[in-house]
Amino acid sequence: MSVLTPNAAYEPTNPFVNALLTDQYQLTMTYAYYQAKKCDEISVFEVFFRKSPFMGEFAVFAGLDDVLRFLNTFGFTDEHCELLKARYPTWDPAFWTYLRALNAKDVVVHSVKDGSVVFPRIPLLTVRGPLVVCQLIETTLLTLVNFPSLVTTNAARHRIAIGPKKTLLEFGLRRAQGPDGGMTASKYAYIGSCDGTSNVLAALQYGIPLYGTHAHSFVTAFSSLSDLHKSTITDPEGKEVEFVAHVLKYRQLLGKTQTHEGELAAFIAFAQSFPASFVALIDTYDTLQSGVWNYLATALALYRVGYVPNSAVFSDGSFVYVPKGVRIDSGDLAYLSLKIRAAFVDVSEKFQAPLADMSIIASNDLSEHVLHALQAQPHSIDTFAVGTHLVTCKDQPALGCVYKCVELNAQPRMKLSEDHGKLTIPGEKRVYRLKDKAGVCILDLMCLASEEPPAPGVKVLCRHPFDANKRVMVTPTIVEPLHYRVWDGGLVANYGADKVEVREPFTMSSPRGCEQSKEGHHVYEPIDRVRARVSTQLGELREDHLRAVNPTPYKLSVSCQLYDYLHRVWLQELPIRELE
Amino acid sequence: MSVLTPNAAYEPTNPFVNALLTDQYQLTMTYAYYQAKKCDEISVFEVFFRKSPFMGEFAVFAGLDDVLRFLNTFGFTDEHCELLKARYPTWDPAFWTYLRALNAKDVVVHSVKDGSVVFPRIPLLTVRGPLVVCQLIETTLLTLVNFPSLVTTNAARHRIAIGPKKTLLEFGLRRAQGPDGGMTASKYAYIGSCDGTSNVLAALQYGIPLYGTHAHSFVTAFSSLSDLHKSTITDPEGKEVEFVAHVLKYRQLLGKTQTHEGELAAFIAFAQSFPASFVALIDTYDTLQSGVWNYLATALALYRVGYVPNSAVFSDGSFVYVPKGVRIDSGDLAYLSLKIRAAFVDVSEKFQAPLADMSIIASNDLSEHVLHALQAQPHSIDTFAVGTHLVTCKDQPALGCVYKCVELNAQPRMKLSEDHGKLTIPGEKRVYRLKDKAGVCILDLMCLASEEPPAPGVKVLCRHPFDANKRVMVTPTIVEPLHYRVWDGGLVANYGADKVEVREPFTMSSPRGCEQSKEGHHVYEPIDRVRARVSTQLGELREDHLRAVNPTPYKLSVSCQLYDYLHRVWLQELPIRELE
Repeated sequence: MSVLTPNAAYEPTNPFVNALLTDQYQLTMTYAYYQAKKCDEISVFEVFFRKSPFMGEFAVFAGLDDVLRFLNTFGFTDEHCELLKARYPTWDPAFWTYLRALNAKDVVVHSVKDGSVVFPRIPLLTVRGPLVVCQLIETTLLTLVNFPSLVTTNAARHRIAIGPKKTLLEFGLRRAQGPDGGMTASKYAYIGSCDGTSNVLAALQYGIPLYGTHAHSFVTAFSSLSDLHKSTITDPEGKEVEFVAHVLKYRQLLGKTQTHEGELAAFIAFAQSFPASFVALIDTYDTLQSGVWNYLATALALYRVGYVPNSAVFSDGSFVYVPKGVRIDSGDLAYLSLKIRAAFVDVSEKFQAPLADMSIIASNDLSEHVLHALQAQPHSIDTFAVGTHLVTCKDQPALGCVYKCVELNAQPRMKLSEDHGKLTIPGEKRVYRLKDKAGVCILDLMCLASEEPPAPGVKVLCRHPFDANKRVMVTPTIVEPLHYRVWDGGLVANYGADKVEVREPFTMSSPRGCEQSKEGHHVYEPIDRVRARVSTQLGELREDHLRAVNPTPYKLSVSCQLYDYLHRVWLQELPIRELE
Repeated sequence: MSVLTPNAAYEPTNPFVNALLTDQYQLTMTYAYYQAKKCDEISVFEVFFRKSPFMGEFAVFAGLDDVLRFLNTFGFTDEHCELLKARYPTWDPAFWTYLRALNAKDVVVHSVKDGSVVFPRIPLLTVRGPLVVCQLIETTLLTLVNFPSLVTTNAARHRIAIGPKKTLLEFGLRRAQGPDGGMTASKYAYIGSCDGTSNVLAALQYGIPLYGTHAHSFVTAFSSLSDLHKSTITDPEGKEVEFVAHVLKYRQLLGKTQTHEGELAAFIAFAQSFPASFVALIDTYDTLQSGVWNYLATALALYRVGYVPNSAVFSDGSFVYVPKGVRIDSGDLAYLSLKIRAAFVDVSEKFQAPLADMSIIASNDLSEHVLHALQAQPHSIDTFAVGTHLVTCKDQPALGCVYKCVELNAQPRMKLSEDHGKLTIPGEKRVYRLKDKAGVCILDLMCLASEEPPAPGVKVLCRHPFDANKRVMVTPTIVEPLHYRVWDGGLVANYGADKVEVREPFTMSSPRGCEQSKEGHHVYEPIDRVRARVSTQLGELREDHLRAVNPTPYKLSVSCQLYDYLHRVWLQELPIRELE
């Protein structure tokens, strides 16, 4: 399986994602259901989380494409069954034949759209089908939803911290939780509003803009100007012209002849290779004494030989690279950025060169909190490159999505708990987002799947799920359904359209029903559409729900019908304790 | 590529692990080195971390097998080059031919053994070879070492918290950072001293004992005894005998006829499928009012029909499963475990059944800190199943391994910083662990690779790398070298033997030089040997280095020769600032 070949089958990108990527108890439960003849009872399970991550009041759902790839290939192979049989030699041999035949063709999945803003208790996925299949896919579904949703949410929070105009990059591959952790993080950080990644494979695989500069080791690889192979550069017309002499002249004119010569040589070498997109890391030796002046001497020489900043981006868009500028990776980023900007402005005036607006990229152990702190003080950083905190979600490295049975054989199922937060709300449900006439979200209303949805312009009573006294009346201008049927024994195409088209389960050779990404891969939805949804939906929320500190909780209400249903089931299930 | 087929090639288990899994700046630097004609300069890079994770004073190195799989297949394919060429259309076309031909045949890697206890600044991997190749593999190497080492360390800390006798299980797949995050966590948690995992694929792939019970949903799937398909059970002789009547009789005799009937039905069904290894989750409704009594009624009935606890494990070891017992997943675990044990003991005496010692498994959001807290109070838990905290390393989800150039063209390279912690120590180095006559580690001594190693019984002066006044004299009884040549253009077999054998780079069809795991896979070292090394090495450290709170730092000293070398280079490199 080449992960880079377009038109590949609609199947998991990682061979580890198969029916065996599960907890042992799914297999033991399956065997017990098989023996108890309960396998084909029709169940409904929901994926949801109980608490928004990062001390916030929202999350962004993501991972649907991976979930559908898994469902599309779900099943135990002969090899799987042989391995399991050897592991469980006492199990009834007929069971393996039964297991071998299972697939997801009797399963129906409703999902919120990839990239939707979601809140605690909203079913992200609702899975209806034979008990045994619904149970067997639990662990894999959670694994495929938990981390993508977490990273997308995390990136969205980083974006909120810096606002829409600054550039946000993900540079975290080396610190990710393994290769897949890195690939997943790069993909979903982009969906969550990053502008690009340093991860080459992710960029090629998912069509994400690619960014990068060079490492400190590139600078230390040069000791002096004698390490340079040539003193010329190719000018914009393609002629070899003298370059090093210009750089040295400008260093002289800047009055900074004591800068580190090895660093200067490294910058010259890098400029010789990338004259149209020269960017350099300037903190290897001393940012303000050496790096910034070596950079400016080189940049002025580039200008001298005809390279105009920000003008040399290739028109076909294939070469995506930061515009000319510097990266700083240590020290007081706000202070340094102001000093660097001042140097850019001075030099720009002194030499009549348009270098004042070059980019300043900051990249030292940034996090959402550091971004908020930087934004609260004067600085001149244009681009934030975030690594560890973004890809590992350091502030909260797991989203606690759970998978709970809410219905079995058309009977409600409810997990009791003395903690209301841990109660499950029984029954198959749908959620509708009610908006005012300005398009701003008022609240989400959870109804039974069998109920009529609320209608625009019609007053509806919205109740707190557990507190009888908390009720509000809402007349929504817009009612947006959150759930769509995405799998019905096969992929459901025309996501969110009124008329859905049900497809056969895919085979390796016929990946039908997907869309094609611009890289030619089959995807359920193109990544840029999902990414756009994130910012659209965040824009429809009141800002106080998105605050980093003490955000206002967003209301998830239940319909009167669901309220009554929930409380009837609850009373029925709850044993009356005897005090002894 | 079937990940489960024995005798597969010695290559990465994840197709994402290839030369493109890297940061863009590695490619731009490569291109700049290529144009500056610096590609073949001989460089030495080191992987190391600067601070031990989890507020501790040690880490465990892991991930070598994955690193070697990557090196063994390192190179850009035609497809890779085509994709990159399209992305960078202005680059010299000759470069792609050059890139296509690169591989790891001129690279030599020295490594500490997988599963070794390590400390800040110890080179975990030392990579010597052409500058361009050493640079290109940076990101992937870090990705392959950082997370495995972190999880192994985390598991070792969990083990230290509970001591050697309790059982420690990893149950975290669903909360892991993606599928690979889960597979990696299961593998390295086992190496770090877990006794097993719930992850089926990891168990089959890596040969890890597999554990599990059932979920709450299994319990809620049964409403009453009428959900049971049959009232009999297969006894140990294979005869169908009456079972439900026995269970109900024992429930009566226990005086607990008000327990939840659906729960009782679920337990009976599970026992019918797994009579020889019956274990149940008892907290779905009410642990002490319902769960424990339903469990005991079922367990007594099993005993009555001939199933003796802890005696029915299969002799071929193929069926690895927890012995009879209960799992609790909520509430005050210490208190509940004592109450449950008391019930076990009472019932055991009253009915003359050997049920007092059944396992009590705890699994609710456990962490290293919770384990320490539990161990500091009375409890009767036998087995701890840890999920989120273990697999995501919640307390610190990334290990900050870095990759620094320490030598180029036989000249030292040093990254300067005003913070001593961020200085790199120049030159290719080897580390020796000096032990006293009891085999306890005294300190680690870092020397230049060119130096004679310290010798047992010979006094050696050990210096602090940066503080001239800190010196100790040590006469070690044992000198253990930490570094071994593991890759020399191909895999070096006989890891750690005096006489090493150098192999050709592997091809898909000839995975030579590896060992075979008991699953028949090619591995650099069998997982159980690596796992044993972790506990052996931790046992050789003074306990105060391993403490959870305020551990004593372990000494990493440098030889006199390295001290002089380091300080000579430092003075040479450090510019004298001019005060203005």
